[in-house]
Order: sequence, then C-alpha cells, then structure tokens
Amino acid sequence: MSLASNSATEATIEGLRGLLGERLSTSMAVREQHGRDESWHPTEAPNAVAFASTTEEVAEIVRRCRASGTPVIPFGAGTSIEGQLQAVRGGVCIDLSGMDQILEVNAEDLDCTVQPGVRRKQLNDYLRDTGLFFPIDPGADASIGGMTATRASGTNAVRYGTMRENVLSLTVVLPDGSVIRTARRARKSSAGYDLTRLFVGSEGTLGIATEITLRLYGIPESISAAVVPFTSIEGAVDAVITTIQSGIPVARIELLDDVQLDAINKYSGLDYPVQPTLFLEFHGTEAGVAEQVRLFGEIAGEFGGGDFQWASQAEERTKLWQARHDAAYACKALRPGSEIWATDVCVPLSRLAECIAETREDLKSASMPVPLVGHVGDGNFHLCFLLDPNAPEEYREAEELNRRLVQRALAMDGTCTGEHGVGLGKLKYMADEHGEALAVMRAIKTAIDPDNIMNPGKMLPGTN
Amino acid sequence: MSLASNSATEATIEGLRGLLGERLSTSMAVREQHGRDESWHPTEAPNAVAFASTTEEVAEIVRRCRASGTPVIPFGAGTSIEGQLQAVRGGVCIDLSGMDQILEVNAEDLDCTVQPGVRRKQLNDYLRDTGLFFPIDPGADASIGGMTATRASGTNAVRYGTMRENVLSLTVVLPDGSVIRTARRARKSSAGYDLTRLFVGSEGTLGIATEITLRLYGIPESISAAVVPFTSIEGAVDAVITTIQSGIPVARIELLDDVQLDAINKYSGLDYPVQPTLFLEFHGTEAGVAEQVRLFGEIAGEFGGGDFQWASQAEERTKLWQARHDAAYACKALRPGSEIWATDVCVPLSRLAECIAETREDLKSASMPVPLVGHVGDGNFHLCFLLDPNAPEEYREAEELNRRLVQRALAMDGTCTGEHGVGLGKLKYMADEHGEALAVMRAIKTAIDPDNIMNPGKMLPGTN
Repeated sequence: MSLASNSATEATIEGLRGLLGERLSTSMAVREQHGRDESWHPTEAPNAVAFASTTEEVAEIVRRCRASGTPVIPFGAGTSIEGQLQAVRGGVCIDLSGMDQILEVNAEDLDCTVQPGVRRKQLNDYLRDTGLFFPIDPGADASIGGMTATRASGTNAVRYGTMRENVLSLTVVLPDGSVIRTARRARKSSAGYDLTRLFVGSEGTLGIATEITLRLYGIPESISAAVVPFTSIEGAVDAVITTIQSGIPVARIELLDDVQLDAINKYSGLDYPVQPTLFLEFHGTEAGVAEQVRLFGEIAGEFGGGDFQWASQAEERTKLWQARHDAAYACKALRPGSEIWATDVCVPLSRLAECIAETREDLKSASMPVPLVGHVGDGNFHLCFLLDPNAPEEYREAEELNRRLVQRALAMDGTCTGEHGVGLGKLKYMADEHGEALAVMRAIKTAIDPDNIMNPGKMLPGTN
Repeated sequence: MSLASNSATEATIEGLRGLLGERLSTSMAVREQHGRDESWHPTEAPNAVAFASTTEEVAEIVRRCRASGTPVIPFGAGTSIEGQLQAVRGGVCIDLSGMDQILEVNAEDLDCTVQPGVRRKQLNDYLRDTGLFFPIDPGADASIGGMTATRASGTNAVRYGTMRENVLSLTVVLPDGSVIRTARRARKSSAGYDLTRLFVGSEGTLGIATEITLRLYGIPESISAAVVPFTSIEGAVDAVITTIQSGIPVARIELLDDVQLDAINKYSGLDYPVQPTLFLEFHGTEAGVAEQVRLFGEIAGEFGGGDFQWASQAEERTKLWQARHDAAYACKALRPGSEIWATDVCVPLSRLAECIAETREDLKSASMPVPLVGHVGDGNFHLCFLLDPNAPEEYREAEELNRRLVQRALAMDGTCTGEHGVGLGKLKYMADEHGEALAVMRAIKTAIDPDNIMNPGKMLPGTN
C-alpha cells in the first residue's frame, strides 16, 4: 500500500485538533520523540501525536483515521526495542501514557484492571500494601499496554509465565472504532476463540488495548536472591538446565556472561567477580525456600559454581535486580557513545547450551563488544551489539551476526524472538519461522483490519 | 447456508472410498455412532465416516470435501458433552482415533508430541517410566485432540492450568487442505499472532490438529490426597476460596455436594459420609506437602471441615480420583434409565460461594436430581441434570434451569462454560457473553474457513 494521502491525513489531523485541543500535537519535537523506540531503528515521525485520555476518545480517533486511511500507531512508554513505533507510513500516533489509572484491584480474585499507560513499577508500588504483586518485568519500566502488545516477559517468566499467561481479559478498540471485551474475568473459559491471546503480542496491528485485566500473585512469605559465579558459561548453562529439569520452582534464574557482568559492575558500582554468573531468586515459604536453595546449591557445586552472595533483605534484592534490569544501559556505558542493537532468541532448553556455545564461537570474530545475557530458565537469551553510530560497517556486521543467530535458533526448533517482538527488526525472519502459517496470520490481519491502518508495516512482512 | 448438495457430497464420498477403501464407512451403525457425543443432544449422523491415518490423508480428505462444499467434523473419542459432534449439516466425519501414536517425548525439555487420537490415560501410562506426567484430566478418557479442541481442563487445572497453558504447538490441517505448524517448540515466543491459542478451543471450526506438542511435568516427589467432609457447602466453598487466596499451591481441590457424594458412594462402592465434601491433592517435596497439608488443615478447621481421610499410596489415590472422574456415570446410576445433561459455568473466585448458593436455591424446586460438582479452585462448577428420556417437560425444565445458571454466571463476570465448550448446547449464550466480540470471532472464522466446511453450526451462532 502507498502512503496515506497527505490531504486526507491533514484533514483528519485538523479534525482531531478540534476534538483534542492541545492534546493533539504536530510539533516536530513531539513527533520525533514518538517516531522511535529504544532500538537502533531510525526515527520515522508520525504526522501527529494524539494524547488520548479515554477508551471512547481512542475509538473516535481510530474511527476518524480509518475514514481517511490514516495509519494509527499506539504508543505507551516508548521502550520497545525492535522498531515497533516507527511511523513507516506516517499517520497518527496515539500516546496512551496519560491513561495511567489502576481501575480496580480484586484482591480476593488475585487480579486487577489497569489502563494501558500504567507502568509496571507504578503497578507494583500501588499493590504493595495489598500483599500482591505483578511479576512480569522486562528490563525497562515499560507500560502494561506495551508489554501486552509485545507479549513481554522478563526475569520471573520461568515461574510465573509471560504476558501470554497473565492477561485475563482486554478491552480493545478495533480498527473500525468498535470496542470489545475479549473475555470475562473468570480464570478459565471454553466459550469461543481465545481473543485475549490473539491480541496479546499483536504489536498494535489488530487494535488498541485500553483496559487490561491482569493476574496477580501473593508476595511470597520468603524470598531469597543470590549471585553465583561459574568457572565457565557452559557450567552455568548446564546448572540452569538441570535445575529446571529437576522441577525446582526457581522464580528467577538469569545468566550474564563475563562481558555483561563487567558492564554491570562498572555501571551499577558493584564488585562481583568478572565471570559467567547466575542471578537467582527463590520464592516460597521459609521451609520451601530453604529446600530450593539446598537443592540448587548441590547442582551449582556439580557444575563449577563458586561462592554464593546472598541478598535476603528487600533492599539488597532490589539493588541486585535493578542492576540486572539495567543490563542494556550498562552495555551502553561499556562503549561510550555507542548505540545498542539488542536481539533475542529462544530455543528448547535441551538446545540452549549448544546454541549459546555456537553463538559465542561466532562472536569471537566480532569487531565490537557483544555482551550476552539471558532468561535462560526459559531457553531465552539476548545479545547486545554495541555499535559506533558512525560506522555503517558495524551495523552490517551486526545484521549478519543477528541473521546467523536467528537461523541457528530456528534450526534448533526455536523462535526468532522470545520476548522483544517482531517490529521492523525481525520482519525478515517471519517467513522462515512460520512458513505457511504466515498466511493464516495475514488472513487474520486482513479480517480484523481490512484497511491496514493499525501499525502498518510491523510484524507481518508485506503489509506496509 | 443450506445443506451441502447431496449429489456433490455423494460424489465426494465415492472418491474418498477410492482413497481409503474400507476405512471409509457409510454403514448406518458407524455413522450414527459418530453423529453424537456423550451429551443429551440427539444423534445427527454424518453421510460417511473416514478413518484417517496420517496428516496427509486428513489434508486430502479436507481438500476433497472443500471442493464439493461438504462439511467436515473431526472425531476423537466421542466424549464431548455439549453437542460438538452432531453432523447438523451432514458431511464427512473424520475419525482420528487411529492416529494414536506418541511421536516423541523430549524428557529434557519437559514436552512431548502426540497424534490427536492418543487418549490421556494412554499418554500417562506411556510416560510413567520417564518420571513425567501430563496433568490435564477431564472426567472421561478423552483424546488429546478432543481436549485441545474444547480447551479442556479438569481436576489439576488449579495448579497446572488448562489445555490453553499446556499446548506448546500444533500441526493443523486448514480448511483448504494446507498444513501449518502454529509455533516452534520454544517455551515462549513473541514472533507473531498466537495461532496455537487460536486453535486450542476452536472445536474443529477452524481446522484439524494432527500433531500436538504438550508440556509435561515431573511426577512430584511426594503426593498426598485427602477427602474432607464439611458441615455445609458454604463452609466447603469458603475453605477453597481461602486456600487459593492464601497461595497454597494445591494440585487439586474438588467440591462434591451431598447428592453427588451419595451417587459416588453407590457407584464406586465407597462409604464416605454423605455431606458436602472436598477431594484434595497436594504435590511437592515431602516437606512442601507436609506444609501445605498443615496450612490447609487449619483453614478446613475454621470452616467446618471434619475428619480427613488420607490416601498417600498410589493405589488408594487412583481409586479416589477414579471415583471423582466417574462422577457423571455415578450420577446416571442415581436415577436408572436417566439421560445426563451436564453443564458448567465458571465465575471469579470471589463470586463462587454466592453463585453456588443461588444455584442451589434455584435447584430446590427442580423435579429431578441435580448433583453439583466442581473444580472450585478455578471458580468452575458443574450441574448434572438427570432426565427421564421420555419426559420432554424435564428437558424444558433443565433448559430453563441451565439458562438461569448461565445468566447468573454472566452477571457475575463469569463465562457460560469453563471447560465443556460451546458445541450446540451453549450456542445461544455466546452473544450474551461476548457482545460485539462475537463479530471478531465470526470474522476470524470466515477468514480461515470461508466456505464454512469445518464443523459448521457449532460454537458460533448463525454459522450453520
């Protein structure tokens, strides 16, 4: 499809100005700020940014955009990392950050309903007094709407699942401006197609979630976190695999290679041994946590694990996990002035050691630092290419390393992205991963968004 | 749509006879056996039954049926209970029971891939030596294909989730005869729409799963089961709610009212006190199970729980759970010669006590026995109307009681079915439950099955 007609788009934007007043911006600074995410993908500014405040307003904006064939790009916190926000065909960006209300917490049902602009840390701050928490934690302080759109996960997924398992229901504005609710608040249902799961991970290409009902969990009676260095990355990975296969219900089990550990030490002012390292957390009753720790200790000993550094106090744990969540920023500091190209893949656990070993072998010849970090309990790991923004050859090199990483993961029955999403960055791998199933995805896209106004050019190759 | 043209269907069937030989049956006995499930819905026989043995064969049958507009109804074990199998527009039933191979078990990855005709007990028998098990257990010894199609759950769902959470990937024959794989074997992915979850629970209306990759779990080190009578059903339900809210990871927590308990005693030769009763099971390490038992014991004591009858030996547990799984058959025996109309709803846990209380009040005037049994840890419960097959007024009465049950659940933000599916029986409630979202389901159906050949007339009202 071609770019939306300029005059029709301009007329739509003028109309939206009447609707939203100062909450419709066409200033270059605001547009550029909304035409990028935290990825290396170049900014592509939308024609205008609409700051929506209600579901009805989102619906009205979408209806008007549809009437003129104007693309619509939803925006939460801007923290995606595969080029999910670039306005490749122009259009109107709907900024949902102002829709940041926690609408209800049903403590008895262990669920809550929030607006899409709520940030994950905001939600957990709010929940603290209830004794509940929401576990999904991508590195950035992302919005719940964005996390829903990219099917985010993070460090707790090995125990609590990803957004796939933790969204109970959505209120969605469809491309025709109608508003649906994808499911009831019951924990399970066999009543029809699973629309909730269809919209989770759809990256804004099917509609815009304006209310999100999430599962919550009781804050465990006992939490204990530890940092454990290993003599080799293979040993660390094998310890993870054995832990998962033994059914030890670790809450978090994160791998950092020596490059990443060094980066974190420097960025966060820590002094962990510069070795391949696991960051772990155990949740349960006191007795349960003690048992998990004992069992994991035996496994770590078998695979070259060194001294455990424990963090049992909430404050120490927060510091530890903040350091882990800051991994990407720490990487950036490792090569001042560099730009980050973050990528991730996920493979069956039995192939993880092999996939990481081959990847590290491949990275030996890389001309830039490439820290490796991973949610290895899920078989998911990340690379972080640190690129000189003025060296296009480095981008070509990263592209090639990334391509080989993805092909390696696919050959092991893995996926081209475990949690970052497709955006623009993984578009080219969708056909290799899905084969003929891609035609089903396209048929669904066309059925729900026949005019292709919802975040066009993302996720599905050939739809821009 | 009208019925498929008889002559085109007949020609298709003759062609299939050439393809399948004796594995294509048009005998009245075989057709009638395949035109019903275990529900009260009258038999509607297909024109022919095709016993398929490979994915390619299923694809070829579907292609031929599509060419002549002949409906296709997949058949596993025939144990569904909402009228999922009736050939309301005639057509070809594809019997998948011969595709009963366990294709691979990846013990290291805690997954396996099976053909759709594998039964749940067969799978667990096969797995026993590996130390792994598959937890999803609807009452009947259903096929994995059928369980996938109805998004089945059962007694373990409170801890292990339903088919929604436990299917990793599917090989699906689409209505045009093409074959897709919905996902890789990685534990998580953010690469595109969640086709796996779209096909799970689609009741054969979008395609036919011919390979199913499932999550497996390690058999717990320690398992303990108990039967606990309560002085009142309210007390039993409140004990369940408190248990779940306290985060005690019970593996099973099942409610049977006094009528159901009596039925089970009689059918299975047991002598439990005829009171509202919980059947429970705890999984974990020895210390973990002991802790769970202690915590639950305190809660039960608070809410009028009586003496625990423990079953720690595998054999005793099997007997206990077989009795629970035979609940439906036990009901039938309670009123010899009766026909069962089983129904289920699921509500948020905080509304469960109220929903059950109002339902029991409503049942007081019922002219037939109506045992109540439920996977109450999920907020899911069942009624079993025991009807005189020769008394149409009883069916009308059940219809009305069922309608009020569903409306009550919907008013509490629940769903018209937690695990039985829609079939023909819950068709009329889909609009009330989903509102405008039903249009999205229809759009998806049309996009994937434009000729409406896949199990037409089921799940989506207005598609027959």
